[in-house]
Amino acid sequence: MPHTHMGKVTLVGAGPGDPGLLTLNALGALRRADVVVFDRLVGPGALRRIPKRALQIPAESLGRHGDARQHGIHHALIEHARRGLRVVRLKGGDPFVFGRGQEEVEALEAQGIPWEVVPGVTSATAGPAAAGIPVSHRDASSVVTIATGHEARGRDEVPWEKIAALGGTVVVLMCSDRIAGIVRRLRKGGLAASTPAAVVSRASLPTQEVRRASLGRIAEVLARNPVAPPALLVVGEVAALGVPRRRVLPSGRARARRRSLE
Amino acid sequence: MPHTHMGKVTLVGAGPGDPGLLTLNALGALRRADVVVFDRLVGPGALRRIPKRALQIPAESLGRHGDARQHGIHHALIEHARRGLRVVRLKGGDPFVFGRGQEEVEALEAQGIPWEVVPGVTSATAGPAAAGIPVSHRDASSVVTIATGHEARGRDEVPWEKIAALGGTVVVLMCSDRIAGIVRRLRKGGLAASTPAAVVSRASLPTQEVRRASLGRIAEVLARNPVAPPALLVVGEVAALGVPRRRVLPSGRARARRRSLE
Repeated sequence: MPHTHMGKVTLVGAGPGDPGLLTLNALGALRRADVVVFDRLVGPGALRRIPKRALQIPAESLGRHGDARQHGIHHALIEHARRGLRVVRLKGGDPFVFGRGQEEVEALEAQGIPWEVVPGVTSATAGPAAAGIPVSHRDASSVVTIATGHEARGRDEVPWEKIAALGGTVVVLMCSDRIAGIVRRLRKGGLAASTPAAVVSRASLPTQEVRRASLGRIAEVLARNPVAPPALLVVGEVAALGVPRRRVLPSGRARARRRSLE
Repeated sequence: MPHTHMGKVTLVGAGPGDPGLLTLNALGALRRADVVVFDRLVGPGALRRIPKRALQIPAESLGRHGDARQHGIHHALIEHARRGLRVVRLKGGDPFVFGRGQEEVEALEAQGIPWEVVPGVTSATAGPAAAGIPVSHRDASSVVTIATGHEARGRDEVPWEKIAALGGTVVVLMCSDRIAGIVRRLRKGGLAASTPAAVVSRASLPTQEVRRASLGRIAEVLARNPVAPPALLVVGEVAALGVPRRRVLPSGRARARRRSLE
């Protein structure tokens, strides 16, 4: 039996969805790929960069849900790498920011499979930016907290009350179906009902939608006028920024960009 | 006098330094630029992507320090855009993650200058990743806090004790000359001396250096063996990950990647 050359797995962050936010290294890894295992959240623009000769495997085809799917993904990455192939694991945003990338790394290391990571533009910062919202502000926000609404079941609980106590800017990824509960706990932790909030759906894509309201009203606004997943929530003074000028300032006074909230 | 066409300012994030982490949109903006105002922290690889015909202005040439320089930058952006030019403001990392990007946006809006932002790969997540450290971990870290060691003078104070109380992963950008003080306050806020910590200097560049120690020892390790700026500090369970296997596991047992700390 001939010696088989060992392949490699490259975890690649595809960014928030706009294919223009792919990095040069991501593009290079896709161009060289023999196999690409991709998430549904990766935008169609990134998928079009995969060469025709490469095998494309949707992660959804590898298991029905959560942990079962994750094990299916590990298995596929390992098997294709063992066949000597260049495998790309293409993930939305950044692989190491609530992307379960570390679990994949550990599965690969356990089998001695070489891996590398290509960091991506994370939706945690680029999602708000796509709505004109800076996550930090020299005068208004000296600290940014990032969490996910899609928690690991029964494992590590997100300390929403402590996040509220810290203040600054709070960004919650993958929050679509949990906003009411998260808002309740942030309020319980001490964030005022008048704190500005914004929800950005499908950030950076042509179908992007933004809802703005105070923290006290955002859940109601979304209940009345829902957005498609994926959606992220931004809470803090910065969430009032980035309102298009023409909607706020017909008179052209440019500095008062803060929309009146509650 | 002929009507003058108004130019535009594009705030572009250059990523942590590796030119392969430029996005396609960043590259496009640089290629179209007439004028590029760039920070020293932008890597030489990104600067090589600027066309020869473009005027290159180092931000350092526009003012001696802090606010004076910032006003010089605003003035340069506004004046060149008014002359009808395509102006790129090229910043390390992401313009809206502790990059003073919002101040530039406000200065431009006050003068009615059109602007747009191209989000970049932020050093807050890609810096740790370059050292093999995931900022989130499904079992170990459900929340990530980002702050900067380079605070605005006398304005918004970073609540280090509350950051410590939140736990999870803490990333401190631009921390080189303040680590001892920051560590003291994180410890005061309740983080154990045994909490893993890592400092990544010049993340993603060929000159990258990493120092690892417990939170109780990291300041001493750096005092004995300093790193060049820019440097970022990662604190939390994840900071123990990413240690190259050969240095930790001569026997080849792959899963126990956690280095013994303190």
